[in-house]
Amino acid sequence: MSTFGQFLRVTTYGESHCPSVGCIVDNFPPGVPVSEEILQPQVSRRRPGQSAITTPRNEADIVSIQSGVEGGVTLGTPIAMVVKNQDFRPSDYKGSTMKQYPRPSHADFTYLEKYGVRASSGGGRSSARETIGRVAAGALCEHYLKLSHGIEIVAWVSSVGSIHHIPPTTEYPCNSHNPKFLQLLQEVTRETVDKTTVRCPDPEVAAKMEKCIADFRDRQDSIGGTVTCVIRNVPTGLGEPVFSKLEATLAHGMLSIPATKGFEIGSGFAGTEIPGSTHNDMFIRNPNTESESKNGFAKPKLTTLTNNSGGIQGGITNGANIFFRVAFKSPATIGLPQQTVTFEGESDGLLEAKGRHDPCVVPRAVPIVEAMASICIMDALLMQGGRRMAALAP
Amino acid sequence: MSTFGQFLRVTTYGESHCPSVGCIVDNFPPGVPVSEEILQPQVSRRRPGQSAITTPRNEADIVSIQSGVEGGVTLGTPIAMVVKNQDFRPSDYKGSTMKQYPRPSHADFTYLEKYGVRASSGGGRSSARETIGRVAAGALCEHYLKLSHGIEIVAWVSSVGSIHHIPPTTEYPCNSHNPKFLQLLQEVTRETVDKTTVRCPDPEVAAKMEKCIADFRDRQDSIGGTVTCVIRNVPTGLGEPVFSKLEATLAHGMLSIPATKGFEIGSGFAGTEIPGSTHNDMFIRNPNTESESKNGFAKPKLTTLTNNSGGIQGGITNGANIFFRVAFKSPATIGLPQQTVTFEGESDGLLEAKGRHDPCVVPRAVPIVEAMASICIMDALLMQGGRRMAALAP
Amino acid sequence: MSTFGQFLRVTTYGESHCPSVGCIVDNFPPGVPVSEEILQPQVSRRRPGQSAITTPRNEADIVSIQSGVEGGVTLGTPIAMVVKNQDFRPSDYKGSTMKQYPRPSHADFTYLEKYGVRASSGGGRSSARETIGRVAAGALCEHYLKLSHGIEIVAWVSSVGSIHHIPPTTEYPCNSHNPKFLQLLQEVTRETVDKTTVRCPDPEVAAKMEKCIADFRDRQDSIGGTVTCVIRNVPTGLGEPVFSKLEATLAHGMLSIPATKGFEIGSGFAGTEIPGSTHNDMFIRNPNTESESKNGFAKPKLTTLTNNSGGIQGGITNGANIFFRVAFKSPATIGLPQQTVTFEGESDGLLEAKGRHDPCVVPRAVPIVEAMASICIMDALLMQGGRRMAALAP
Amino acid sequence: MSTFGQFLRVTTYGESHCPSVGCIVDNFPPGVPVSEEILQPQVSRRRPGQSAITTPRNEADIVSIQSGVEGGVTLGTPIAMVVKNQDFRPSDYKGSTMKQYPRPSHADFTYLEKYGVRASSGGGRSSARETIGRVAAGALCEHYLKLSHGIEIVAWVSSVGSIHHIPPTTEYPCNSHNPKFLQLLQEVTRETVDKTTVRCPDPEVAAKMEKCIADFRDRQDSIGGTVTCVIRNVPTGLGEPVFSKLEATLAHGMLSIPATKGFEIGSGFAGTEIPGSTHNDMFIRNPNTESESKNGFAKPKLTTLTNNSGGIQGGITNGANIFFRVAFKSPATIGLPQQTVTFEGESDGLLEAKGRHDPCVVPRAVPIVEAMASICIMDALLMQGGRRMAALAP
Repeated sequence: MSTFGQFLRVTTYGESHCPSVGCIVDNFPPGVPVSEEILQPQVSRRRPGQSAITTPRNEADIVSIQSGVEGGVTLGTPIAMVVKNQDFRPSDYKGSTMKQYPRPSHADFTYLEKYGVRASSGGGRSSARETIGRVAAGALCEHYLKLSHGIEIVAWVSSVGSIHHIPPTTEYPCNSHNPKFLQLLQEVTRETVDKTTVRCPDPEVAAKMEKCIADFRDRQDSIGGTVTCVIRNVPTGLGEPVFSKLEATLAHGMLSIPATKGFEIGSGFAGTEIPGSTHNDMFIRNPNTESESKNGFAKPKLTTLTNNSGGIQGGITNGANIFFRVAFKSPATIGLPQQTVTFEGESDGLLEAKGRHDPCVVPRAVPIVEAMASICIMDALLMQGGRRMAALAP
Repeated sequence: MSTFGQFLRVTTYGESHCPSVGCIVDNFPPGVPVSEEILQPQVSRRRPGQSAITTPRNEADIVSIQSGVEGGVTLGTPIAMVVKNQDFRPSDYKGSTMKQYPRPSHADFTYLEKYGVRASSGGGRSSARETIGRVAAGALCEHYLKLSHGIEIVAWVSSVGSIHHIPPTTEYPCNSHNPKFLQLLQEVTRETVDKTTVRCPDPEVAAKMEKCIADFRDRQDSIGGTVTCVIRNVPTGLGEPVFSKLEATLAHGMLSIPATKGFEIGSGFAGTEIPGSTHNDMFIRNPNTESESKNGFAKPKLTTLTNNSGGIQGGITNGANIFFRVAFKSPATIGLPQQTVTFEGESDGLLEAKGRHDPCVVPRAVPIVEAMASICIMDALLMQGGRRMAALAP
Repeated sequence: MSTFGQFLRVTTYGESHCPSVGCIVDNFPPGVPVSEEILQPQVSRRRPGQSAITTPRNEADIVSIQSGVEGGVTLGTPIAMVVKNQDFRPSDYKGSTMKQYPRPSHADFTYLEKYGVRASSGGGRSSARETIGRVAAGALCEHYLKLSHGIEIVAWVSSVGSIHHIPPTTEYPCNSHNPKFLQLLQEVTRETVDKTTVRCPDPEVAAKMEKCIADFRDRQDSIGGTVTCVIRNVPTGLGEPVFSKLEATLAHGMLSIPATKGFEIGSGFAGTEIPGSTHNDMFIRNPNTESESKNGFAKPKLTTLTNNSGGIQGGITNGANIFFRVAFKSPATIGLPQQTVTFEGESDGLLEAKGRHDPCVVPRAVPIVEAMASICIMDALLMQGGRRMAALAP
Repeated sequence: MSTFGQFLRVTTYGESHCPSVGCIVDNFPPGVPVSEEILQPQVSRRRPGQSAITTPRNEADIVSIQSGVEGGVTLGTPIAMVVKNQDFRPSDYKGSTMKQYPRPSHADFTYLEKYGVRASSGGGRSSARETIGRVAAGALCEHYLKLSHGIEIVAWVSSVGSIHHIPPTTEYPCNSHNPKFLQLLQEVTRETVDKTTVRCPDPEVAAKMEKCIADFRDRQDSIGGTVTCVIRNVPTGLGEPVFSKLEATLAHGMLSIPATKGFEIGSGFAGTEIPGSTHNDMFIRNPNTESESKNGFAKPKLTTLTNNSGGIQGGITNGANIFFRVAFKSPATIGLPQQTVTFEGESDGLLEAKGRHDPCVVPRAVPIVEAMASICIMDALLMQGGRRMAALAP
C-alpha cells in the first residue's frame, strides 16, 4: 500500500521513469501558514548530485503545491504536492542488458515476481525517487510540529561502515548511558549536521567517513551506515496502544525507507545486556512545568533522571527526547562486475552497472529519516489531540 | 489503535484486570479446518508459570472460539477468540502504595498522561496479558500458512544479557555470513527450541542463559535478551510497496510487542559495515522448481547464493528464508527497592514491587514473536493472492 | 469487512449459531461513566419476542462488558461487549430440508457462492443476531453523545406497507416542508415511540400498522416499511469531505442493516421535484447562541429558516436537525410455501419455512437505526474534535 | 477523508481554485493495457459547457497519467492522474460580495464552521470539480471490469423535476416489477443515453426534460432529478459482510457525490409496500452456465425469476443485474436574488449569484454515478478474488 498514517494520511505515487512523483497529504490541519519555500529545503537536501560522494544524477526537484493551500494558508483539505521527473529517460534503458539480468540485491527480481510486469527501471517503486513525496510531506509535518509545539527533529549520520561517531566503549557499552551522546541529543542542530558533506556533526569523524565513502566509490564498491535521529519537545501521551505504539509506527516508517535493515530505539540492542536496576529510568519532579499548555498539551509533572527508554514507555511518549537509530545496507548497485543469471535463469552473465548511483546512501537518507519521523509524530499528535478533546473529566 | 493488518485484520481487547482478553480475526479464509486444540499449544507456550524462571502467576488460559467456525471448518466470517482472566483481582490493588507511585520504566505514568484515568493495573493495555489475543490469532494464521503453503515459522532465544547463542566473531562479524547460523536457520524446529526451558536450541548455551536469569531473579533484578525468528518456504512476491514493505510491517509487528527496543532483518546492523560487493546476494538458477504451484503460487526460477537480504528485497519476498532478530529490554518491574516520586510529583518514596513478575521475558516472548510474524506473513499472502487473481496476462 | 468507522471503530462478530455475538469498540474516549445498565435497554429493545408481532425466538440477550471499563469509568482502551447465544441450536438444522434449498431472497445462496462453505444457519452473518453487537456499541456511543453534547437520537416507524404516519399531500409533497412533520422532529421522544408496540408515535396510525402486520402474519406472509430518524443538538462542522460526507457514512451505516433497500436524507427523493428557489434553506442569525461551548464546540452564529437539507450541507453539519428515512423490505422468510430449486439446481421443491421469523422488521429495526446513527455521529464528532484541537488560529 | 475503497483505494485532491485536481489509484492490478485515450471520454462527459442546459464554464479537462503505467500497460503501482484547472481565477473572487454572505444551501457556511478558514471558492472540496478525480479513477476501473469480466455499467437520467422516464403506475407501483423497466435494464447502452442532451434514453421524455431544465434556467431557478444505474454481468459473491455489504458501499459512494439526497436499490422505497410472497425472488436453474470461468469466477448454477433484490442478497451479489437510483436536489446556486445574512450574522442582504452554474445537475452526474459504481464494484471484486485465491477446498 502506498498510504501511511491513521489520521494524517500520506499517499505517495511515482517511480523513476514517469512524468512526476509526489504525494497527497490528507487531514492536515487548517489555518497553517505554508508555502513551497518552507518545503523546498528538505526536498533539496535529499536531492542527488549534491557532492562528490552522492550520485551525479541531476534533478532540479522543485516541489509544487497543487491544492489545499490558498493565500498562503492551509484549508484543511488534501494537500497534493508534485515534483517533475525532469531527467526521466525511459528510452535509454531500452535494449540495455540490464533488462536481461536482475541486479543482485536490487528489487528487479522481486518486482517481476510480484507484478509479472517488467518496468524499464526494474525496481519500480523501490527507486529512491519515490522518497521525494515522503520528504515533501514530512517537511510539511515538521513545519506544523515546530509551529504548534516547538518540536525539533534532527537526524545525522552516526556511522559509515565501521567508522562510528560515538562508538560503544567499555564504560558505556550502550549510548543511552554515554554523557557525550546524551549531550549531543540535546544540542545537535540541522545546521551543525549540514556543516559536513557526510552530515555527521563531528567534523573530524566526518572527514574519516567521507574518505571511507570516497574509497569505496573509487573501488566501484559501496558501503552502508547508520542514521540516528532525535525528536525534542515532544508532548506526553503520544502513541496508541496496542498496535500503534509510537516505537512500532516509527519502526514501520523507518523500515519502509529503501535499503534499511534495522531499527533500535533508546538503549536498543545494547540495552538488552543491561539489568533492570540500571536500565529503569527513575522518575523525578519535572523542574520545568511553569510554561502554559500549548495547543491543549501541558508540560508533565514528572520527568526521568535517565532516558534508556528513548522517550517512550508502553508505546506512549513520556516527554523525554525520543531517539532512535536506523541501519542502511551498502547500496546494491555497484560498478564492479557481478556474476548473475537472466530472469529466466537460462544463462549466466556479468552485470556491470553503468548508471548513476550512490556509493553510500546515509548522507541523503538523513532528510528521509526526518520526514518519516515527522509524519509518525504528527499522526500520533493529531490522534491524541482528538482524544483529549473528547475525554470527559472523571 | 487495536487493529493490525490490511486485509487480514486482527483486533485485540483486554487488559489484566477485566473479565477476559481476546481478539477478532476478520477476513480469515473459509474452508480451513480449525479447532481450539490447534490454537491452544501456542497460547499455553506464552502462559506464565511454566518454569522457575518465569512469573508464578498461574492462569489456565484456555482459548475458546466464539464465532466463525462451524463443524470444525472456518466460515469466512470473523473468528472471535476469548480467554478468561481467571486470576484477575482488581480489588487486591485497592489502597496499595503502587497507586501512588508510577513504576519506573513501566507504562503507569504514560497511560495516565494519555488517558487521564488511572486503572488498577497501571499500565492498562501494556500488560503482557494483552498479548494472549495476538498469540491466539497468530496460531490461527500459522496453521493456515502451514496447511496452504507449508510455511514454517520458528523463533528462539538468541541471547540473554551478554550470553549469545551465536556471537559475532572476527571471521563472521555478521551472522548472515556465518555457516553455523545459516544451518540453524535451515534446521531449527519448535521441538528443539522447547527442549530447554529458556527456549534456546543449543542446550549448553541454554544452561548458561538459565543460570543467568536465575541469578538476576535471585538478586530481585531483571535482564533483557533477543529473540531470533526464521520463516521458511515463503512464496515470492509478498510485501506491498511502499509503506507495506514486508520488513516494515514485520518491524511494526515486532515493536508492538511490549518491552521491545529493536528489530533487524537479514544482515541487520552488523551488515552496514560490509561492502556491497560482498553483501549483495548473487542470483543463480533455482535447482528446486519442479514442484507444482501451491494455491496459485509457483516456485521462482531464481534463487540466491547468499542471503544477507533476509529473504526480502525492495520490500518483497524473494523466496529465501526470512530471518530477523528482536531486542527485549530487561523487565521494568523488579523486587529491588527503587527511588521514585508520586504521580503528583509531590514526595519521594521507595517502590518495592511485590507482584508477580518475570526476571527475563524472552522465553515467553518466543510464541509472541511467532504470532506477530504469522499475522504479517498471512496478511501479505492474502494481499498478493488477490493481486495474482486480478492481474491480466500481459 | 466487519469494522465500521474511521476514528471510533466498531468491529462485530458472530452469527446465529455460535456461542456468542458481540463487538469491540476501539478509541472510545476515557473518563466516561459507563455500566451495563446503560447499554441493556437498547439491546433489549431489539430483542425478539417482545410482542405478538415480532418473532417468538426468546433470548435473554444480556450484554456483558469484557474490557475497557473499570470502576464504572471508561479507560480509553477497547471496550469488548458480549451477548451469549443462549438459544443456539445448530444440531436442530442438521438433516433439515432447509439445507438442500436456498431460501428465496435470503442470503443462503449468496453466502455459499461467496465462501464455498454452507453454515447451518444458511445466511451466516446476514442473521439479525449480528446486529446485537452494533446495538450495544451504538448504545455506548449514544450515551456519550448525550453526556458530552446533549445530542438526542430518536427513530420511529414511519410506514408499514402502504400505511404512512405522515403521507405526502398535495400541499406538502415533501415532508421537509410539512409543519406537522417538522414539529414531530422537534418533539418526538423514545418514550412516545415506545408507547405503541409497532413504535409509531401516533397511536391511531400505530393501531392500523399493527393490524396490518398481524394480517400479514396470519396469512404467513410478510410486509416492509420505513423507519425515520432524527438527531437533535448536533454541533456544526461534523462530516469529512469528500468520501466521508456525513450523509454518505449515514447511508453506508443504514444500508449495512439487513433488509434495507433505501436511504434518503432531508427532502430526499420527493425533494428532487422542488425548485432551488423553494428548496434552498435561507440563513438567519441564530437567536440561540448565548450558551457556552461544550467540549470545544460552540453554537453557530447562523441558523436556517427551513431545513430541506436535513441538517447537512456539503457533507458537513450546519447545526440543524439531521433527519433521514430508511426503507426495509418485507422479510424473506415466510410461512407460505415457495417454489425453489436445490443449491445444485438439480430438482425443484417447495420450501415451507418452519422457523421463527418476523412478519415485519421495522419495529425491531428502530434501535438498530439509532445505533448506526450514533456510531456515525460519534465517529464524525471525534474526527472534528481532533481537527479543532489541531487547527492553528489564522 | 479523501480516500475511498478498502483494497482498491482512490484518493482525490483539489478544489476549484487551485492549479490542478486529480487522484491516486492504489492497488490497481498489473498488466492492464491503459492509456489516457481510454479515460478521456468519461472525463469529457462530466465536463461543463457541453450544452445549453449545463454550466458555460469552459474547461478543457485533459486527463494526464503521471505514474503507474509504462509502455501502455499498468505496473501494479499507484496510478496518479491529473487534470489542470485551466480556468481557475481565485483573484476574481477577491472583494466580491460573495465573501460576505454564505450562499443558502451551499457549503460556504459549513466549510467555515468546520475549518475556520474561508477559501475563495467558499465550499472548498464540495465543488463539482472535485469529482473529476473520481471520474478518471472510475473510468480506469470500468475499463478493467469490462476487460476482465465483461461487466457493463450504464447510468441515465430517470427523472427531472416531476418528469419521470418510467413513472410508477397502478399496475406497477414498483419499477422492479415493470417489464418496460426490466427490459431497459437489459438493453440500455451509453450510446442510447448520449443520444439526448439530457441523457435520458427515451427521446420523447428527454425532450420534455430538456424543456423543463431550460424553463428553470430561464427563470434563473434550478431543479433536481434522479439518475438510475445498471451493472450487468456481475460475478456472484461480491460484497463483504457486515459493514461492506455491496449496497452499503454503493450507497456510501453515491451519497458522497455532491447534491445527492437519496439512494435506493432494487425495489427500493416502493418495494416496502409489497408483501414478501410477491417480493421474494424465486430461484431457478441458471440456463446459461456453459461458459468458462473468467479470471477465477464461474457462472452460478442458479438464477432468479424476478429481481426485486437488485442483484444483491445479504449484501452479496447473486449474479443478477444490479440497479439503483440516486436523488439529486436542485442546485443551490441560482440567479434569483435570495435573502441572506453575513457570515457574522450581522446584517441582512440580497445574494445574487453571478457565477457559472448548472440549472440541473443530473445530465452531468451520469458519468459520476458510473464512476463511483465502477470503483465500488472493482473494490469488491478484488476483495473476493483474494478470498477465492485463499480459500481451502473443504
